[in-house]
Amino acid sequence: MADAKIPYSLNSKAVAQATQAWLHTRGVKVEQIAELVMLLQQKYYPNLTMEECIHNVEMVLSKREVQNAVLTGIQLDLLAEEGKLFSPLQDMIVNDEGLYGVDEILAFSIVNVYGSIGFTNYGYIDKLKPGILERLNDRSTGEVHTFLDDIVGAVAAAASSRIAHRKQAERENDLGLPHAPEDTEDAAKHLDAEKGQKQ
Amino acid sequence: MADAKIPYSLNSKAVAQATQAWLHTRGVKVEQIAELVMLLQQKYYPNLTMEECIHNVEMVLSKREVQNAVLTGIQLDLLAEEGKLFSPLQDMIVNDEGLYGVDEILAFSIVNVYGSIGFTNYGYIDKLKPGILERLNDRSTGEVHTFLDDIVGAVAAAASSRIAHRKQAERENDLGLPHAPEDTEDAAKHLDAEKGQKQ
Amino acid sequence: MADAKIPYSLNSKAVAQATQAWLHTRGVKVEQIAELVMLLQQKYYPNLTMEECIHNVEMVLSKREVQNAVLTGIQLDLLAEEGKLFSPLQDMIVNDEGLYGVDEILAFSIVNVYGSIGFTNYGYIDKLKPGILERLNDRSTGEVHTFLDDIVGAVAAAASSRIAHRKQAERENDLGLPHAPEDTEDAAKHLDAEKGQKQ
Amino acid sequence: MADAKIPYSLNSKAVAQATQAWLHTRGVKVEQIAELVMLLQQKYYPNLTMEECIHNVEMVLSKREVQNAVLTGIQLDLLAEEGKLFSPLQDMIVNDEGLYGVDEILAFSIVNVYGSIGFTNYGYIDKLKPGILERLNDRSTGEVHTFLDDIVGAVAAAASSRIAHRKQAERENDLGLPHAPEDTEDAAKHLDAEKGQKQ
Repeated sequence: MADAKIPYSLNSKAVAQATQAWLHTRGVKVEQIAELVMLLQQKYYPNLTMEECIHNVEMVLSKREVQNAVLTGIQLDLLAEEGKLFSPLQDMIVNDEGLYGVDEILAFSIVNVYGSIGFTNYGYIDKLKPGILERLNDRSTGEVHTFLDDIVGAVAAAASSRIAHRKQAERENDLGLPHAPEDTEDAAKHLDAEKGQKQ
Repeated sequence: MADAKIPYSLNSKAVAQATQAWLHTRGVKVEQIAELVMLLQQKYYPNLTMEECIHNVEMVLSKREVQNAVLTGIQLDLLAEEGKLFSPLQDMIVNDEGLYGVDEILAFSIVNVYGSIGFTNYGYIDKLKPGILERLNDRSTGEVHTFLDDIVGAVAAAASSRIAHRKQAERENDLGLPHAPEDTEDAAKHLDAEKGQKQ
Repeated sequence: MADAKIPYSLNSKAVAQATQAWLHTRGVKVEQIAELVMLLQQKYYPNLTMEECIHNVEMVLSKREVQNAVLTGIQLDLLAEEGKLFSPLQDMIVNDEGLYGVDEILAFSIVNVYGSIGFTNYGYIDKLKPGILERLNDRSTGEVHTFLDDIVGAVAAAASSRIAHRKQAERENDLGLPHAPEDTEDAAKHLDAEKGQKQ
Repeated sequence: MADAKIPYSLNSKAVAQATQAWLHTRGVKVEQIAELVMLLQQKYYPNLTMEECIHNVEMVLSKREVQNAVLTGIQLDLLAEEGKLFSPLQDMIVNDEGLYGVDEILAFSIVNVYGSIGFTNYGYIDKLKPGILERLNDRSTGEVHTFLDDIVGAVAAAASSRIAHRKQAERENDLGLPHAPEDTEDAAKHLDAEKGQKQ
């Protein structure tokens, strides 16, 4: 029957696609986040390419914890923009109240997934508001991006941490000291293959 | 003119009152949170009274970071209950999806304000779901408390941490080793009085 | 010249090996951590095998953030055991002082890497102290494991989160909805191959 | 008997005094941290005085969680300086290894006590390294301040958050909307007085 209730079952692909679609709808391109990454990392890695930055941003955005934070933050921004939150939450979010810190908390859940080395980059970029962050902070548009600006900064900081880990792995590889990067599944797969595990 | 826009200005009293009102509307009484605190702490402090537990819960709820988390969490629960969130966030929150962890993140921002010693109590109570937490987790009611149940557990854990700090201060006082508890303003006030500062 | 100073260069393999060696020296086996994981997860996944639990603990221990926390925590335990810390830090760590929460903070940096869904498992196991955690908490031995017991619980909680993510990926795969798990590098590798990037 | 073992009992005053003494020994003055606070906050509060900055730094340093982090961080710096840590932790701390993030984790436990609004200030100041932070980062001295530089930045960020909360309370007071600041004990004391509780 058409209206029989389908039991809930998480669809990871739908979550990932909604994340991409909502970022796009809210005017944020992966390339713009990658530009923030380049800004943060080029002095440490002069040969860093935009292609690598984009790739690392995409990898960060493929993490479920990140997707959860992005979707929740954009939802709250959107509802605030439409005036649909209850008072005084509505006012606090529309005005990006300085003493309201839930936006920073969501942002931090993104940075944390790549470890503490991203804390500094997050704070720095969130203070300076370069590139896309400047537009997201422009209140004159009538749009509300109280959550999204912190989230975008956090994704850039997380991608920077990811690059730092990867560059170290490359360096050790070049020195003839190959070591499986800690967050790849390489080791896992070899192990699984040996054990004949399905995973 | 009546419809001249009043410039935004944070009203802390309104935020505090909304926190109390919304907890009440969503069926959570301070006494019920205090019962969780008693459950967590009575084995360490056999003379602990319900009055003290209630008082400590009230003190936790008077903190702005806590109010921000309570209001944001209840707002998301409410919108999910009314089916007003976009997909797939709507489904994830209504079904308290195990891989959606933003509720835990908000809860943790509450525990954190009283320091890391509350981490364990939060996890413990969130797993056992005693008292009010059992009702908040009952899906048969049609109500959605995905955020609120974690938040209530976090307030109880934070109040437990607060009691641990206070009891140590009492003990040292009884031993003739008075030391200003680190989160009172006593020291501040004496200092301010000497300096004639307005604060 | 033999004593020319070799410039510092991080050796990831050495860090990973030291982590394994120190856990072993301090009496903690991967199997014992895996038993904690089984205890936490078997009611959700009745077919979960010890082999899978061991594999997931190994994957957690291969993460650099985890290695940093393990090494730092064991170092502090060891120095406290030898009486080499300054006062009053020495006393606080030897006595696992309840108001000293740096051990919980290090533990949390481990849980965080796999996201907020591990918070509850960490707190629960840290309160109940089953299996290896009971021995680590036995003060009668003269050993100090103030940091290590929290760290072991955190590794078990992190491995539990990892399993939850993997099991969801398996389920979606079985439903014909394959989706790259967010923390594998699969997607990355395909992308890299297409782009001919070295990484 | 003189050498009968005195049972352990936490002495909060001793912990507070050790924190002050060790900061002094390691070359950090409260005034220098206050200068960082002034740098962060003067554009928001043009009338902010150094006296207020000093007072707020002192209040942050009176918190136990902060004292725990300061003492633990300085102890690790000191042991690294003396070459007493095991390998490879010794090398990672002496060289302030970029992929070692336990220093940031301890720093964050300080910022967190005053809530998420301090995240940005911490990252910003940790990147720019003004004033005392520049000296703490100077490797040519032979001193190791891998933990202390992050901790000092975190104390400054926390004091900035504290000021933001206090200034809001002052503003509301001036508007005739007095509201007990959430982290004072005022409300508590009135309540206690009414109830005749000893606390």
